[in-house]
Amino acid sequence: MNKRLVIALGGNALGNTPAEQLALVRGTARTIVDLVQEGYDVVIGHGNGPQVGMVNLAFEYAAGNGGGTPAMPFPECGAMTQGYIGYHLQQAIQRELAHRGLQRPCAAVITQVVVDRDDPAFSNPTKPVGMFYDQSTARRIAAETGYTFVEDAGRGYRRVVPSPEPKKIVELPIVEQLLDRHSVVITVGGGGIPVVAAEDGGYEGVAAVIDKDRASARLALDLEADMLVILTAVEQVMINFRSPNEKAVGAMTVAQARQWAAEGHFAPGSMLPKVESCVNFVENSRGGTALITSLDKAREALQGLTGTRITC
Amino acid sequence: MNKRLVIALGGNALGNTPAEQLALVRGTARTIVDLVQEGYDVVIGHGNGPQVGMVNLAFEYAAGNGGGTPAMPFPECGAMTQGYIGYHLQQAIQRELAHRGLQRPCAAVITQVVVDRDDPAFSNPTKPVGMFYDQSTARRIAAETGYTFVEDAGRGYRRVVPSPEPKKIVELPIVEQLLDRHSVVITVGGGGIPVVAAEDGGYEGVAAVIDKDRASARLALDLEADMLVILTAVEQVMINFRSPNEKAVGAMTVAQARQWAAEGHFAPGSMLPKVESCVNFVENSRGGTALITSLDKAREALQGLTGTRITC
Repeated sequence: MNKRLVIALGGNALGNTPAEQLALVRGTARTIVDLVQEGYDVVIGHGNGPQVGMVNLAFEYAAGNGGGTPAMPFPECGAMTQGYIGYHLQQAIQRELAHRGLQRPCAAVITQVVVDRDDPAFSNPTKPVGMFYDQSTARRIAAETGYTFVEDAGRGYRRVVPSPEPKKIVELPIVEQLLDRHSVVITVGGGGIPVVAAEDGGYEGVAAVIDKDRASARLALDLEADMLVILTAVEQVMINFRSPNEKAVGAMTVAQARQWAAEGHFAPGSMLPKVESCVNFVENSRGGTALITSLDKAREALQGLTGTRITC
Repeated sequence: MNKRLVIALGGNALGNTPAEQLALVRGTARTIVDLVQEGYDVVIGHGNGPQVGMVNLAFEYAAGNGGGTPAMPFPECGAMTQGYIGYHLQQAIQRELAHRGLQRPCAAVITQVVVDRDDPAFSNPTKPVGMFYDQSTARRIAAETGYTFVEDAGRGYRRVVPSPEPKKIVELPIVEQLLDRHSVVITVGGGGIPVVAAEDGGYEGVAAVIDKDRASARLALDLEADMLVILTAVEQVMINFRSPNEKAVGAMTVAQARQWAAEGHFAPGSMLPKVESCVNFVENSRGGTALITSLDKAREALQGLTGTRITC
């Protein structure tokens, strides 16, 4: 039986516009197919922060500027980004598989992820989506739409939405059926379309963005994956980041990761949710390990040559 | 082995806005789950004319009105509608399955459909998308965007795009894997994201809308389905439509259907592609039959009580 990898792709795998994304997914596909070629069964999760903000804003503007199109609720915008990003990713992965003569189907599955209606995140929006704005533009949009904006790391103002914990992946059985046949599956796009239990026994969408690393950890646990691989902009996790005694970490135990997190080594909204997702997976899986590295070092990192490995 | 149905859903199953769609898919889901409950394995195709026009226009307007969002190519808009419509459909079908205690997973698969780059449709756009406009608004949008508009059946002006023939469903192996496990699969949304063979051996998107009935017929042939079911606004196909000797057709052979089509009984862009899709399926399948009926009569029609059945 092949080893199962759940790969969480960061924003640098996708870019900010359709043209950028179409170019970037080619490199992303090479990395993913490298891993397929090495004999892994691969499931891919990805973010959608810039994309869901873009879709939501396009609909807001069109509705308010004579486009005659309806406003689009946030979960529906998330569903759109799963189609948009999934299409580009699967097309690029299919091309790369074909080039290497590998007969593996690949497709994106529209995926809902259940969150709790009373998750404290709903009263404290923290997840940045969409583009950066200057202060006056952000104020204008906030006044027009009721969105919450926050200043983001000196780069300008950005809308924030709630980011609740992923509890359950609704389409897990579909992912399992495809994975059993060794297909390459793209799922929990943007962390999944966030839904809550409805009174009628079904689910209904809710305005939020689930962190894609947390959703990928949930997925890796539910699929009993051998490894959770979080691909981001940096090759290794750093402690004492941007200080004279900055140090790359090659491996850490769950206990070490927890201690460093408590000491503030990992930035909230950036490295912290990645480390926490790895800890969650490693601690709750049966013998699973986690890996954080960059997209272009993924293959070497899986061979143990670089990256940051999180183990029990 | 269960009988396989490919169901093509018409625009009346989805509506024109997110709120309308969310309400309508509940009824659509009841019909689909009726058929699942009767023991069929069900694959669902659906249109996206209003939706892809809406997404495309929202992005055009936002890009042109200070939204700061990029223009969105047409195939990417199609991919978005697969996410948007697939999400609503699968959520509604899952709810209905759960209510009836049926353990069948259901999900939408992002699906590309290959067309020929030299399909004559590309020089003759005919497929209406998006909303209806009055003449002056249509002229203004045409001048601003280069879109082609045509007057549509006295209801106003509507954008038209090319509608090439579906040649191959890229994600067919994924659909087969899920269908083998009796999952309910939503695919070829909007007729599929239209792609053409690229020089690098992969596929690339192209601005078009594939007719969803033709794509569903292709799908039914490739899946060796037992039946193609086209659900639309009318219970039965009519000959001499809107004339004193108008007559509902309960059954027709391929030869009869061809003759009536040649005599102009079926409206182009409306009933004609449905009848042609049925003829294509019945003629090229091994013993398959086709059925045209309304959403709310589907169950009765499958029992032979109404609808229009097309056979060899």
